Amino acid sequence: MEPSGGRTLRVALLGCGTVGSQVFRLLGEQAADLAARVGARLQVAGVAVRDPAGRARVAGVPGELATTDAMGLVTRPDVDIVVEMIGGIEPARSLLLAAMRTGKSVVTANKALLGADGAAMHAAAREHGADLFYEAAVAGAIPLLRPLRESLAGDAVRRVLGIVNGTTNYILDRMDSSGAEFGDALKEAQALGYAEADPTADVAGLDAAAKAAILASLAFHTRVSAGDVYRQGITAVTAADIASARVLGCVVKLLAICERNDGGISVRVHPAMISRDHPLASVRGAYNAVFVEAESAGRLMFYGAGAGGGPTASAVLGDLVVVARNRVAGIRGPDAPSYAELPVLPMSDAMTRYHVALDVADRPGVLAPVAEAFARHGVSIQAVRQEGRGDEAYLVIVTHTARESALAATVADLSAMESVRAVDSVLRVEGEAGE
Amino acid sequence: MEPSGGRTLRVALLGCGTVGSQVFRLLGEQAADLAARVGARLQVAGVAVRDPAGRARVAGVPGELATTDAMGLVTRPDVDIVVEMIGGIEPARSLLLAAMRTGKSVVTANKALLGADGAAMHAAAREHGADLFYEAAVAGAIPLLRPLRESLAGDAVRRVLGIVNGTTNYILDRMDSSGAEFGDALKEAQALGYAEADPTADVAGLDAAAKAAILASLAFHTRVSAGDVYRQGITAVTAADIASARVLGCVVKLLAICERNDGGISVRVHPAMISRDHPLASVRGAYNAVFVEAESAGRLMFYGAGAGGGPTASAVLGDLVVVARNRVAGIRGPDAPSYAELPVLPMSDAMTRYHVALDVADRPGVLAPVAEAFARHGVSIQAVRQEGRGDEAYLVIVTHTARESALAATVADLSAMESVRAVDSVLRVEGEAGE
Repeated sequence: MEPSGGRTLRVALLGCGTVGSQVFRLLGEQAADLAARVGARLQVAGVAVRDPAGRARVAGVPGELATTDAMGLVTRPDVDIVVEMIGGIEPARSLLLAAMRTGKSVVTANKALLGADGAAMHAAAREHGADLFYEAAVAGAIPLLRPLRESLAGDAVRRVLGIVNGTTNYILDRMDSSGAEFGDALKEAQALGYAEADPTADVAGLDAAAKAAILASLAFHTRVSAGDVYRQGITAVTAADIASARVLGCVVKLLAICERNDGGISVRVHPAMISRDHPLASVRGAYNAVFVEAESAGRLMFYGAGAGGGPTASAVLGDLVVVARNRVAGIRGPDAPSYAELPVLPMSDAMTRYHVALDVADRPGVLAPVAEAFARHGVSIQAVRQEGRGDEAYLVIVTHTARESALAATVADLSAMESVRAVDSVLRVEGEAGE
Repeated sequence: MEPSGGRTLRVALLGCGTVGSQVFRLLGEQAADLAARVGARLQVAGVAVRDPAGRARVAGVPGELATTDAMGLVTRPDVDIVVEMIGGIEPARSLLLAAMRTGKSVVTANKALLGADGAAMHAAAREHGADLFYEAAVAGAIPLLRPLRESLAGDAVRRVLGIVNGTTNYILDRMDSSGAEFGDALKEAQALGYAEADPTADVAGLDAAAKAAILASLAFHTRVSAGDVYRQGITAVTAADIASARVLGCVVKLLAICERNDGGISVRVHPAMISRDHPLASVRGAYNAVFVEAESAGRLMFYGAGAGGGPTASAVLGDLVVVARNRVAGIRGPDAPSYAELPVLPMSDAMTRYHVALDVADRPGVLAPVAEAFARHGVSIQAVRQEGRGDEAYLVIVTHTARESALAATVADLSAMESVRAVDSVLRVEGEAGE
């Protein structure tokens, strides 16, 4: 590496947890490499922490760099770039807005903030001529957001299907390989550190919904916030669902789905069956992958580690190098694309296929009224499978593509039928085989 | 899409074949979308063709836009951006150098040129302050080069393993699924349009070697040209090799491999066995995929269509949008990284595992001298398998990681041994299972 010239860029780090401490370490270890790539030295101006005697000391941050005054740090005139690794909406939003207002370039790993309020953050970046990069916010180190906003900028994205939460993928993968129920697989994931003590944000799909909002915004050049995303977690997925998926040659995955339809876009997070032949089906353990279908590019998939200090730090450093190079060159990176203002369609308008499992009385003539209920709402049946067990029978219906509202009306009718003891489960089926 | 302002950028297209005609069509069809994303209208200033009455007319290029004077077109003062889709080294190189010299931004799909002379092209871009983008040159529409040069810019890439040639992947995939010999699978690929009438550039690995040079240059921030790449094609791969791989739980793929070692880098293209558990093993047909291993990011994979007019046109348009946005903003894109000048190690220094198949006399005591030959050169044996057939036996040895020169010396000794009738094949084994 050639030594850099005399120029130095000063970087403020916010947060010194798993990601922050790795970024701090890599900035030291790879200083010469980074200087050669950027054309200027990157110097840590300060590290904002809650407790200077805590993790920052463990991470080797010198006492004079650690500060509890984050707002003071981000608005210091000698700071060029602010890297936010605190997470959560406040105080992160106020800090980043203040940073942009005072001319700093911003790198963040904050999916909650970008998912909730990406449009406002982009508007601030545009107003103040600031760089705003957040590759680490979705799918860890997998370079995904920049390809969506740049490489595919001349193409029309039709659909994005993503496994964007490693915790739920680990749990569903374990349920598939061991036959475990959700509760046991969750406990195992917690014991191994793949799930938090309070796993709600992951298993309820909140984390995936924030990422779906970010993906949809970039894929369709429109404004989507996490609140617009239909969301269903994995807590109701049973071993029976997984076994039933297996019979159909499918696995169950928690998918973030962004689709462009005629009238607008559909953005949703829910468990779904997907064919074992689909490239997403082989994404195991805590890995992430995002499948993109574009008009000209065809089918693409991006795969890698979705979380963890190392992968997230890698994505943060990648962004940091780009914004630093831009400052050296006296430019700012490409704007977020102009917004198309596409409406987000209500979930009732979503179109997909369905797998419906019913407990029915095991007697002749049960199928006819069930089939009639589907027909009444215009939902076409692709396959039926019946298994007797004692005086009950288990009836599985897989539909062709239907509108969510039609399926919901069908399920309401089925629930009211005397011969149907229970609607055991309704699972959406996504992705054609071989996609 | 909001309508663009008054500004117009004028684009010169060089070539109107499969890719050029699609780019021309998409520029027309998506004009409003593109204008909104760029902030300026993109207008075709001219299309350079060999024969104005030929493909350009078929593609609907108006007569007044078609020209045979490519040099005149790229140096016209009213042209802002030059998109080169001719391929080959000359006249593409002279045209692009002239374009950059006269202040144009450049987008190209030319892997031969970038593979042969990427360093000189980048030097010209730097000298003239020009944008030079070539995402389409490797792996079609898969956004891969920009992630390597930007997203992973703060990370240290250790290894890149790529399936970057669809023709050879189709042929090897057919040999694997049908048991066909190379010649028959090639004929089938030609009949289906997956292979050219003269398939040399693909099956001899020339195309993959150019791409390996581009990948290594970007992954390791160093200068590699196609001539530096060790290259072995797939013409010598037999149905017996594929069957033998299957016994080991492997498939045979033509891999482009870029590795960073202690003393420098290793860049090579050759057929290799790879475990069926490896994500690259499931890349079927004419698809491409590139597996990247980086220090912090861990293991990443990029997958998609590697060739074809649509995917290549998508990559070209993606680059075109970025360089156009840069012109609107009055900036140029991030520089290619500073060069590290790492030496390209000779193939004799490469380290990998090997699968060696021998025809030996079927009599007691054959194995001992064979094992001795490996030991003599310090090549450690991982597994041995022997199959009798008539008075001959088939002996397969899989080694641990060894230096290429040591293996070559071992093979020379084996060939000279009286009890070894023939060294049937030597295949490298790449990638740990589960990577």
